[in-house]
Amino acid sequence: MVAKNTIEGNMLIAQSGGPTAVINQSLVGAVLEAKKHKEIKNIYGALCGIQGILDENLINLKKESKTALDTVANTPSSALGSVRRKPTPADCAAIFQVLEKYNVRYFFYIGGNDSAETTHIINEEARKAKYQLRCFHICKTIDNDLRQNDHTPGFGSAGKFVAQAFMGDNLDNIALGGVKINVIMGRHAGFLTAAAALARQDEEDGPHLIYLPERPFAMGRFVKDVKAVHNKLGRCVIAVSEGIVDVRGIPIVTKAASSKEVDAHGNVQLSGTGALGDILAQEIKSKTKITRVRADTFGYLQRSFAGCVSETDAREAFGVGASAVREAISGNKDGSIAIKRKPGKKYAVEFKRVPLKSVAKETQHMPAKFINAAGNNVTQAFIDYAAPIVGKLPRIGKLKRVPVRKP
Amino acid sequence: MVAKNTIEGNMLIAQSGGPTAVINQSLVGAVLEAKKHKEIKNIYGALCGIQGILDENLINLKKESKTALDTVANTPSSALGSVRRKPTPADCAAIFQVLEKYNVRYFFYIGGNDSAETTHIINEEARKAKYQLRCFHICKTIDNDLRQNDHTPGFGSAGKFVAQAFMGDNLDNIALGGVKINVIMGRHAGFLTAAAALARQDEEDGPHLIYLPERPFAMGRFVKDVKAVHNKLGRCVIAVSEGIVDVRGIPIVTKAASSKEVDAHGNVQLSGTGALGDILAQEIKSKTKITRVRADTFGYLQRSFAGCVSETDAREAFGVGASAVREAISGNKDGSIAIKRKPGKKYAVEFKRVPLKSVAKETQHMPAKFINAAGNNVTQAFIDYAAPIVGKLPRIGKLKRVPVRKP
Repeated sequence: MVAKNTIEGNMLIAQSGGPTAVINQSLVGAVLEAKKHKEIKNIYGALCGIQGILDENLINLKKESKTALDTVANTPSSALGSVRRKPTPADCAAIFQVLEKYNVRYFFYIGGNDSAETTHIINEEARKAKYQLRCFHICKTIDNDLRQNDHTPGFGSAGKFVAQAFMGDNLDNIALGGVKINVIMGRHAGFLTAAAALARQDEEDGPHLIYLPERPFAMGRFVKDVKAVHNKLGRCVIAVSEGIVDVRGIPIVTKAASSKEVDAHGNVQLSGTGALGDILAQEIKSKTKITRVRADTFGYLQRSFAGCVSETDAREAFGVGASAVREAISGNKDGSIAIKRKPGKKYAVEFKRVPLKSVAKETQHMPAKFINAAGNNVTQAFIDYAAPIVGKLPRIGKLKRVPVRKP
Repeated sequence: MVAKNTIEGNMLIAQSGGPTAVINQSLVGAVLEAKKHKEIKNIYGALCGIQGILDENLINLKKESKTALDTVANTPSSALGSVRRKPTPADCAAIFQVLEKYNVRYFFYIGGNDSAETTHIINEEARKAKYQLRCFHICKTIDNDLRQNDHTPGFGSAGKFVAQAFMGDNLDNIALGGVKINVIMGRHAGFLTAAAALARQDEEDGPHLIYLPERPFAMGRFVKDVKAVHNKLGRCVIAVSEGIVDVRGIPIVTKAASSKEVDAHGNVQLSGTGALGDILAQEIKSKTKITRVRADTFGYLQRSFAGCVSETDAREAFGVGASAVREAISGNKDGSIAIKRKPGKKYAVEFKRVPLKSVAKETQHMPAKFINAAGNNVTQAFIDYAAPIVGKLPRIGKLKRVPVRKP
């Protein structure tokens, strides 16, 4: 017997936006949960987000074995493929035709704020068309910038990658000296760049300076900051968000960008180029006497590196997927599944259904309490916030370096 | 009683050149072995290679606990600090004064071909000065380009990083399509770039194209290659060595480099800039109709990322360090410890003392049998060679993608 307030039909799930290390955990969490409920007949996956619905490019997820699904869950990037496409009202009409044709009554879309917006539009159009549909957004983004969420699936693992990279890079910088600039993903929110701070184990460990999109970036101040650290330590490790902007809000990277590629959601391309790192390194080289200046751009590695996953992140990503299906089955019509942190000293979270509109489109930024007064570092409050999400990090060993007495 | 052919005195060890993930294994291997031999009284470490000897900046390695040494062994980068400095005859005279002052009779220098040259010069000067010294080079380099060696410590772990990065990046490219170019370290030898091929698990997995410094790089041919792969698969993942040169031997990166920084050994700076990736991406954008083109430069992450170590690499790095001390104690005067692969189907190696001069200065390249005829990929022979060195990689899961029949 089907429970009250539920509907019978098929389920369709898809993935959208930039992949993460744990986005497949959410997919598998939703599929395994759906298998438990007889209201859901067939489980379909659309390839490459809403593009796959428009093209009727659907796969049968009930044909995948439990073992295969478990391995996929532990594999980075979007197993169903992805897309960056904002549906027009005409697209939505076409989407409903397909959903009706396949008797889809449960729709789940895994993605960030742009994907939440897409889900919201589809839900609104469905309502207008009086098409009976349970419509849910499942959160993910390494940027950690979704409203309503304490943090988002994908951030923990990307943060772990960034922290491990800085742990090694700080030691590299101790060994050879000079200035090292690392550019990290984050268009409007600095959370992932800030995660570099988790690499510190001793007082003099880098990153020594952290620049975030939340604070205006001034080139003169940057040079001054670097000089001060270098004078003190003979070296300097810097974390810079790709999205840093000047006081007028203009991205620093555009000062050199030869092309200004824009995606369907109006975002300028920031990643996949070493331009920002090179601009900053050149500035230090030309304005100081420091000879060894290097810049690396972490690029796509931080969102899809195989074999670097936060266990907390993986568990929670699975959880939001499963939770979305349970919410839909239990009679709720729509929503986005948000991660809320429970109060108390011990880290614990719960999943809560929130309105689609409250997550869609706009993003959230690093709160002021996470950024120091000078705007070039993070606070202990940020470390306390991020550490349990990123989880266990490698143990770093250093020599005591007891000097030999001169004979 | 001290064995025949041995000398009593203190030992000094130092690290030089670019750090690796396992260079501290060699350090700890040598120190723990030295502790077993009563001929070696004190164990000193020089900070920042020969610079630390010249500055009498020495530490007492017997003051480090076994636990501390074990943790340091598992920590990337050079725990003693590093340097890129080629000693002059005057430097060598100064070095001997310090060695004599501290009664150093056992000298170990961990590094690549430049460091082998340094060790060779010190050894020759010691001989001329009739200073009794056991002088050994302990090999390391992620470039894997030391003569006499089947492979070198550091390569396996860097190769593992490159392979894991490509595993994830290939999946990212499957999800979003387009062309992805990754620039990998390797000035003259393509081994590390070639290790990207280990990421492949299925026939259509990237990297689809691999460009090495051993074959001249032609821009027109590159564009043609990329177009062919993109036409077939709708995507393309490319591994490019930072050291690729044109038919006249001129590095492609110099076509854009604003500054030409050169180190003490005459090497132009190739790493720590995103220039090469951006040049190649721009070429694809301007010469094809492919819109999504991205480039990442792996940079320093590949040699010092914390938490990505090949177990084989770690074990062998420890082994060459310990072996150098055993060779010195057993009466041999000088040499470099090389890794030789034993014949047979099962992977096994042995450590062999070879003349310092035979490792110093010149490097070795990828043999022709490891590169395909077109010069844009590696052969199965390379995969068979590199797989046991890089060791275990994460398991990648993909969906079967059984299509849903249209209703």
